[in-house]
Amino acid sequence: MRLALLGVGLIGGSAAAAWRAGGVTRGTGYDRDAAAAERGRARGIVDVTAASVADAVADADIVLVAVPVLGMADVLAQVAVNAPAHALVTDVGSTKTSVTDAARKAFIGDALTRFVPGHPIAGRELPGVEHADAQLFRGKLVITTPLAETSVEATEKIEALWRATGARLARMDCADHDRIFAAVSHLPHLLAFALVASIASETDGDRKMQFAGAGFRDFTRIAASSPAMWRDVCLANRRAIADELTRYRELLAALQQAVDSGDAATLEQTFAVAAAARRRHAPTLDAE
Amino acid sequence: MRLALLGVGLIGGSAAAAWRAGGVTRGTGYDRDAAAAERGRARGIVDVTAASVADAVADADIVLVAVPVLGMADVLAQVAVNAPAHALVTDVGSTKTSVTDAARKAFIGDALTRFVPGHPIAGRELPGVEHADAQLFRGKLVITTPLAETSVEATEKIEALWRATGARLARMDCADHDRIFAAVSHLPHLLAFALVASIASETDGDRKMQFAGAGFRDFTRIAASSPAMWRDVCLANRRAIADELTRYRELLAALQQAVDSGDAATLEQTFAVAAAARRRHAPTLDAE
Repeated sequence: MRLALLGVGLIGGSAAAAWRAGGVTRGTGYDRDAAAAERGRARGIVDVTAASVADAVADADIVLVAVPVLGMADVLAQVAVNAPAHALVTDVGSTKTSVTDAARKAFIGDALTRFVPGHPIAGRELPGVEHADAQLFRGKLVITTPLAETSVEATEKIEALWRATGARLARMDCADHDRIFAAVSHLPHLLAFALVASIASETDGDRKMQFAGAGFRDFTRIAASSPAMWRDVCLANRRAIADELTRYRELLAALQQAVDSGDAATLEQTFAVAAAARRRHAPTLDAE
Repeated sequence: MRLALLGVGLIGGSAAAAWRAGGVTRGTGYDRDAAAAERGRARGIVDVTAASVADAVADADIVLVAVPVLGMADVLAQVAVNAPAHALVTDVGSTKTSVTDAARKAFIGDALTRFVPGHPIAGRELPGVEHADAQLFRGKLVITTPLAETSVEATEKIEALWRATGARLARMDCADHDRIFAAVSHLPHLLAFALVASIASETDGDRKMQFAGAGFRDFTRIAASSPAMWRDVCLANRRAIADELTRYRELLAALQQAVDSGDAATLEQTFAVAAAARRRHAPTLDAE
């Protein structure tokens, strides 16, 4: 089974390495940054590099698109005209409605039956194929959001590749996916970036950060992620994120009111709702 | 050196245990919850329990007040009329202006010279004296905020006790302390509680939380702290917290505007400010 990996980074590289266990016998890597593709080849993540999307996919059985979500449309359009008619196409984007929309524009007719949107819930603080790891998905969740047009056979083939990496699988609708991850992933990242940016831009921000305790440290860990990637995610899933952010800002306004007026009951009640939810979901949240 | 521990919980219990190395030979524990004091005695954190603040401090050389910050005023008033004239008094509260104000009301004249406000920057997810640990402060920062009236000798004695636990010491003004920790500790906790509460109160909040990724998990870890303690902190340091929260909400409003209008530049610029600050402070933030 020949794989074309488009975007040779942490997630794509880890998938290409991990999918060897599922039957990938030859991997071709393409990246806009030729040096990244070459680093992937040097590490054995892919066997050869290609100079273009067209070259990479020319003889592929499976195409894995692992570029930032706003770059998907462009890449999928090139895949559509260059990949063999039998090739399955999948992706690892953090937002799924935008990718699905892009696929609907790129693939005509029958080609949509072989497109399987995917999202592995895995990552690492440090980006780049140099940190790619075939074990990255072990015990992690991978979500597929098949289109109505996607064939059952295509979905099952992609899911089998992921299952062979040690991942667990879940299927859902792409809009449902985007609402869920707007809440539990995209909004938290936006809030963490905002907190660190807010304090860093105060005149004594650097002094304050020298006294960062455990709470702040957890925030800064999230803010170590790639600004460009999260900018893209915020734009690609903007409607669902805006909904969550609106709700959150309403609650913050109520909490500010409570702080200003010394309203102990509202503060404790809100904190207790959070603590109870934390306890209710402890088995999931403490899983890693 | 006889210690009276008022408030037998995680931090007070850990300090009482750790101060044995600094010369505490006998510890008396009082807690409003008599069972907590008894658990402290059973673990050897204190040698005996007392039935009241008055009994606990009657023959103390050092009084350590380790109750929630809004309980300090009441306890300090009782310490003032019951402790021997030579006794040093210190505390471990997360906010320092409120404690200092309470001490100024409780202690008359000379007694203020022996009051040394303190704040060890250490903690654990799980509260209670059953998790107290003499090693909790090793390598951690302890801040003292001596009043103008506090004698140098008193401050140095309390700092020596902390130093013997393996902690590092810093001295600062109490208002300065409260501004710094409003930014790097109190606001982050409030934001984390708010995020978990906001999502948990959505109709599909529980379903969403089942898909919590690493970013959200870091937030929920903070939200596992005690609601009552953080309610008190928010009220005790309300002015500094309100300042930080106002700034933060202004930035969130700008980011929502950017999400809504697809303003990629503002998003990336803000995220990049955060990422750069993260990198600048990496040695401190990655220290543990």
